[in-house]
Amino acid sequence: MAEKPATPLLDAADTPADLRRLRPDQLRQLADELRGETISAVSVTGGHLGAGLGVVELAVALHYVFDTPTDRLIWDVGHQAYPHKILTGRRDRIRTLRQGGGLSGFTRRAESEYDPFGAAHSSTSISAALGFAVANKLADQPGKAIAVIGDGAMSAGMAYEAMNNAEAAGNRLVVILNDNDMSIAPPVGGLSAYLSRIVSSREFLGLRGLARRVARKLPRPLHVAARKTDEFARGMTMGGTLFEELGFYYVGPIDGHNLDHLIPVLENVRDAAEGPILVHVVTQKGKGYAPAEAAPDKYHGVRKFDVVSGEQAKAPPGPPSYTGVFARALLAEAERDPAICAITAAMPSGTGLDKFAARFPDRSFDVGIAEQHAVTFAAGLAAQGMRPFCAIYSTFLQRAYDQVVHDVAIQNLPVRFAIDRAGLVGADGATHAGSFDVTYLATLPNFVVMAAADEAELVHMVHTAALHDSGPIAVRYPRGEGVGVPLPAVPERLAIGKGRVVRQGKTVALLSLGTRLGEALKAADRLEAQGLSTTVADLRFAKPLDEDLIRRLLTSHQVAVTVEEASIGGLGAHVLTMASDQGLIDAGLKLRTMRLPDHFIDHDSPERQYAEAGLDADAIVATVLTALRRNAVGVVTGARA
Amino acid sequence: MAEKPATPLLDAADTPADLRRLRPDQLRQLADELRGETISAVSVTGGHLGAGLGVVELAVALHYVFDTPTDRLIWDVGHQAYPHKILTGRRDRIRTLRQGGGLSGFTRRAESEYDPFGAAHSSTSISAALGFAVANKLADQPGKAIAVIGDGAMSAGMAYEAMNNAEAAGNRLVVILNDNDMSIAPPVGGLSAYLSRIVSSREFLGLRGLARRVARKLPRPLHVAARKTDEFARGMTMGGTLFEELGFYYVGPIDGHNLDHLIPVLENVRDAAEGPILVHVVTQKGKGYAPAEAAPDKYHGVRKFDVVSGEQAKAPPGPPSYTGVFARALLAEAERDPAICAITAAMPSGTGLDKFAARFPDRSFDVGIAEQHAVTFAAGLAAQGMRPFCAIYSTFLQRAYDQVVHDVAIQNLPVRFAIDRAGLVGADGATHAGSFDVTYLATLPNFVVMAAADEAELVHMVHTAALHDSGPIAVRYPRGEGVGVPLPAVPERLAIGKGRVVRQGKTVALLSLGTRLGEALKAADRLEAQGLSTTVADLRFAKPLDEDLIRRLLTSHQVAVTVEEASIGGLGAHVLTMASDQGLIDAGLKLRTMRLPDHFIDHDSPERQYAEAGLDADAIVATVLTALRRNAVGVVTGARA
Repeated sequence: MAEKPATPLLDAADTPADLRRLRPDQLRQLADELRGETISAVSVTGGHLGAGLGVVELAVALHYVFDTPTDRLIWDVGHQAYPHKILTGRRDRIRTLRQGGGLSGFTRRAESEYDPFGAAHSSTSISAALGFAVANKLADQPGKAIAVIGDGAMSAGMAYEAMNNAEAAGNRLVVILNDNDMSIAPPVGGLSAYLSRIVSSREFLGLRGLARRVARKLPRPLHVAARKTDEFARGMTMGGTLFEELGFYYVGPIDGHNLDHLIPVLENVRDAAEGPILVHVVTQKGKGYAPAEAAPDKYHGVRKFDVVSGEQAKAPPGPPSYTGVFARALLAEAERDPAICAITAAMPSGTGLDKFAARFPDRSFDVGIAEQHAVTFAAGLAAQGMRPFCAIYSTFLQRAYDQVVHDVAIQNLPVRFAIDRAGLVGADGATHAGSFDVTYLATLPNFVVMAAADEAELVHMVHTAALHDSGPIAVRYPRGEGVGVPLPAVPERLAIGKGRVVRQGKTVALLSLGTRLGEALKAADRLEAQGLSTTVADLRFAKPLDEDLIRRLLTSHQVAVTVEEASIGGLGAHVLTMASDQGLIDAGLKLRTMRLPDHFIDHDSPERQYAEAGLDADAIVATVLTALRRNAVGVVTGARA
Repeated sequence: MAEKPATPLLDAADTPADLRRLRPDQLRQLADELRGETISAVSVTGGHLGAGLGVVELAVALHYVFDTPTDRLIWDVGHQAYPHKILTGRRDRIRTLRQGGGLSGFTRRAESEYDPFGAAHSSTSISAALGFAVANKLADQPGKAIAVIGDGAMSAGMAYEAMNNAEAAGNRLVVILNDNDMSIAPPVGGLSAYLSRIVSSREFLGLRGLARRVARKLPRPLHVAARKTDEFARGMTMGGTLFEELGFYYVGPIDGHNLDHLIPVLENVRDAAEGPILVHVVTQKGKGYAPAEAAPDKYHGVRKFDVVSGEQAKAPPGPPSYTGVFARALLAEAERDPAICAITAAMPSGTGLDKFAARFPDRSFDVGIAEQHAVTFAAGLAAQGMRPFCAIYSTFLQRAYDQVVHDVAIQNLPVRFAIDRAGLVGADGATHAGSFDVTYLATLPNFVVMAAADEAELVHMVHTAALHDSGPIAVRYPRGEGVGVPLPAVPERLAIGKGRVVRQGKTVALLSLGTRLGEALKAADRLEAQGLSTTVADLRFAKPLDEDLIRRLLTSHQVAVTVEEASIGGLGAHVLTMASDQGLIDAGLKLRTMRLPDHFIDHDSPERQYAEAGLDADAIVATVLTALRRNAVGVVTGARA
């Protein structure tokens, strides 16, 4: 590991107020120190590296020019905000990033007054900034709002919706388009091509050009009327950019690593009488750290690494990841069936579909950060006879809920949903947890909702989904690696709505959905050790329920407990509703449901998150014993146990 | 009423194949007959009028030029598709529109092969068309896809996401931008202003201009390379439209009522070697029917009306609508509190916020069809100290689910949601039903979820929400008029998570959420008549639950039944989960949950819909008696009752 770099200026700049006392000619050195500190911190914690390195100069310039926190600085997604955190009083905790109890890997309101709006999902910043700007305008109080949004995030519909409404904020809204030609993967689509054309067709504005352009674009009030008249006479702004057509003043492109250009432009923008203004800044992901510049995708999110060599800590050898198992299983299905195609929303590597794209480029679609389009596009494909797999993380599928309901479920179209990152996800925290999908999908008519208990089950479920042509079907599976079971040579087609008994006992029944099965089996061992013969079932389906199996389990055991990595309204609620519908609870039924708790769970290791959630073997044992009115050492305290 | 108009050409054109056998000079008359037939039909059924009248010529021209149904014609929203339905074999049923068992008021796959994709929510058509086009391309089979989308629908993010991905379809995708400068209300935002500038700055293309433009825009393959090189040399398309910047060929604007212009343009577009192509067609909502031309908003959706006078059937006198009560209650709050503001997504009149906008224009925001932006904008406003009410129909709030989770619930920001059209909605059918909101909101930590039992309760709940600064809060209420209770002179602040007992009994407990309370009270009368003393509670809150009240009701009555206008996972599931968590079911509990069934419910009167759903007084009585194991005449058949 390298020595921790010397950082004399950064040491003296605890807050943006300190930063603003520096001379302009000191900012270059400050930025260099900040970059070194960012690299050093992430080498210890792991986390998002490339995005932060790309905005070091931007972070310095924005805090130097704008009056944060009165001016509200909103980093879209927030994973590029580590340098911003260092500059805003959190340097002493920067080496706790993404650790339990430490700083969040994203912006977060609870962490600092300099984080006015938390983020983690992309493309929210312009809408939020508009809210701040308009609120200040209504209250006639000072404060602009600055949204910093990447070109990849601009592919999402909500960014466009916000731009379409930006006029409401007038000159209180500034959008910094951070164009690094990269989201996590290279961006796709018409907008990306358009931005590339702008950048390739224009030179970076130099200082004189900037002065000219800014003067032209940001007239003093006296000049406004004349220019407006001129525009009106021409009927429309000719030759304007797409952003101008939506109502912005466009300034750019500007070299986002050149502070001598950034500072005067931002000062002009800050003082402009009109707006809203979009500043097109070109940056390089991973800037200033050779390994990250060379491989921006590999340094988007990193493990701990060696600063000198750039070598990342190796993952301990282990079973394949669920993502990898899904990708291989889908490839196998696609080899067999030419109607199978795959859709990702800007997550080709995260979903494993990069492998699919390499093998079947024609049947693979990366639509950018555009989950809404992804789902309805898939519905259209299905309506014309294809067998689309829509691979979207659980938390991001929330973006397409209406499309799931309106275009897929109501029309009963056989779109297959591969829902990665289901349940708690570790270091990314509450914003990325896949907590609600079982609830929000299983409430929909026509839907089949599966959860894989292990990686072999996932293979079966991908196969089952591929063959399921009668309506929508979803399979959820968690982040991380499998449990190490052998993968089936030939996948099995599961009977829809049928679970399986993994372990047969007599007294206690554990009804598991998803990968809590391992904890349920552990709990069963411990219960057996206390003399409680325990059945463990893997229900496989949250919908339709295996009513026969569930009824049998509920009525033939003294206590039954459902266990799932999902929120209230999921499997437990469906089992209880079935038990109520069928009158099974009338005569007494010890049925408990274990689920995610009614609070959001912060970033930590998944194991500790599940312990906090009360969804590990210990908690299962405790729930059973409490239901049986025994205490932990097995003494029966109730009358009926 | 006027005589039914003579329609000789239309009478002979049962299908688009018949239509395509007409001579071009007959199409004008056919269109006139089609317009008359549309007016005549809607005067009988009520429904959407203005939008359909605006696209009569388009419907004729598209079916004339394209090879439907092999070419897939997708009407965005679908409420303008009545003329299309008449042209595609459904004329004999056109006077059953929106009636129980009759034609849907939207496009619908089950209804016709000419409806390849159902719609009702806006802005889905381009994504769906892309799916059809790409599927045909992959299968190397004939068939283009034509999306007809309004300028209002273009303000939604998903339309932009789809345009951003349109290149995948090549020349198989045609987008008809139906620009009538109107969605339901006048459209808002930058895009709308942009389209107006285009239309006002260019003359409609005449036949010669069209030929020139189409020739230039749609080169034969030989010319393509040259043009591309030219573009590349210039670095980017200069002076192109926003659509060209996103990758479309743009053709227009064109007079959408002039068949002599429409037909040749569409023929050129059909035969173009390249694409995707966007045809900008200017139409007038309500075209050809004077009353609808004069008041496009009032004739967007109509009751039965007199064709000659245009006079719509009056609503029978009755209690005020929930929408109206909400609007007045919010106005009263806003008079008191300058921090209250209101947001609608293109539904100022539907949500009642037009009144708010008239009184408080600065604090009122119509963001267009942009629910995602609406919610995060509201979150930004709340984070800066405003008290925003986001008024969105239940079914449309699905569009913003991720924003509700990520920007509001996780950050625990006090955004108020006024959720109109909760539950079943009558003639608009399954696509517009507000079935899932209780489930998808009550599963979220931090959320307070209320449902109004009557219009007086709604006033209290608006007041309660206005004063609730500690986190997000939602109130849901149905379409239609209230039950006629007196409105409170002074609204009451309700205790969060506390229900009320409306009627005290001993044997049966009915736990109601929302406006099923009236049916619950009716059921109570009938049960009393059978000797079953019945308590009726209005729980008011789906979350947090009134645990004390619920426990008391469950444990002190022989049978308890929850009743709600919501799907599985809602109140019933939460009550069952509480009863299970607390061990109340261990010793036996006759608890039943009545909810929406596990299938989508077609358009019909709300009363018949609720009867089908099993959520009326009859069904409540039957559920209680069955639970008590009595048959309908009150004989106890079970052992325990």
